[in-house]
Amino acid sequence: MAHNVKISNAVIKRLPRYRRYLKELQKKGVDKISSNELSRLIGYTASQIRQDLNNFGGFGQQGYGYNVADLYKEISTILGLDKQYKMVIVGAGNLGQAITNYTHYYKSGFIVESLFEVNPKLIGGKINGIEIRDCDELVEYTEKHNIDIGIICIPKDSAQEVADKLCFAGVRGIWNFAQVDLELPDHVALEEVHLSDSLYSLAYHMNRE
Amino acid sequence: MAHNVKISNAVIKRLPRYRRYLKELQKKGVDKISSNELSRLIGYTASQIRQDLNNFGGFGQQGYGYNVADLYKEISTILGLDKQYKMVIVGAGNLGQAITNYTHYYKSGFIVESLFEVNPKLIGGKINGIEIRDCDELVEYTEKHNIDIGIICIPKDSAQEVADKLCFAGVRGIWNFAQVDLELPDHVALEEVHLSDSLYSLAYHMNRE
Repeated sequence: MAHNVKISNAVIKRLPRYRRYLKELQKKGVDKISSNELSRLIGYTASQIRQDLNNFGGFGQQGYGYNVADLYKEISTILGLDKQYKMVIVGAGNLGQAITNYTHYYKSGFIVESLFEVNPKLIGGKINGIEIRDCDELVEYTEKHNIDIGIICIPKDSAQEVADKLCFAGVRGIWNFAQVDLELPDHVALEEVHLSDSLYSLAYHMNRE
Repeated sequence: MAHNVKISNAVIKRLPRYRRYLKELQKKGVDKISSNELSRLIGYTASQIRQDLNNFGGFGQQGYGYNVADLYKEISTILGLDKQYKMVIVGAGNLGQAITNYTHYYKSGFIVESLFEVNPKLIGGKINGIEIRDCDELVEYTEKHNIDIGIICIPKDSAQEVADKLCFAGVRGIWNFAQVDLELPDHVALEEVHLSDSLYSLAYHMNRE
């Protein structure tokens, strides 16, 4: 498979969605599926689906369709989900706790190694057995434990500063929940979840439906 | 202003981001800004910015640029942020609590009226003074209090059923955090936050940077 081909961001954004549906199909015992059947399930056109999946070398066979288990596995590999990632979460409030629990129970390849806080009431506590440490220890801990991903669950005012520290300490990716667009060095991947933006889009569509 | 013009989804998705930057500019006491200056801040091209904002009737004046306060206000109105929205949250775990606190402190137009839970240990409790009720009361409460938005913070297996109930009870919008694509009647707006999809995109980019 041609894994080193440059794939557009729009296609990448659709891959986790393909993967979710393929997982459901596997659970239901479905072995193979045509692009037309996938289209009815996912809502993309069959031609869009064929085009997307052709990016990775074309798994489908004319008159057979896609092998569900193979395609699921291949998409997982493309996304890098065959690897493990060590993570730290900065901010141990509700959101930090929610992300800890979420990854703890459902995402075996993504391991929360530690949380970090500035609030002395939370420092020293544990969430799901994972320790909450003082933010002052963030850089040292991240370097020492070869952390791959930093997750930012703090208010926007200190988000860039924390991101800078995480990058300095060697993370390769940042998952940002603070309501600010971060600036990172080119070699660090960034994924931002802007909850307000999503809520405001909802408000817009409610007034237009 | 031409508020009833059909605007593409891509433009709508960018509006909250424009609004965030305009808010920051206002805080800094900036009165007016050119599309070139906005471009340097936001990262879209100046021509993209002019095209986006022209959708709403063209606020900019040749040689002057945009009036920051006016543009901020106009975008807020377009998004429907001059209105108030009554909301219920289904699922009072960490994520439900995080969303409650988040909207409580930061989003004055979005009011959490009640949370709903199936876990008897949580029912009857309060978060930020907001009561946690039994999920069995969801439909009756939602109807009676004319709730506008239902927020789904529960595992995916019961998400569609809860969404159906919320729609039946008259909500106009659903903000879904469950890892499943919901199917709703056409008149109900839907905005989904798929955290896994975002985390997997991050993993992909980390392996490609």
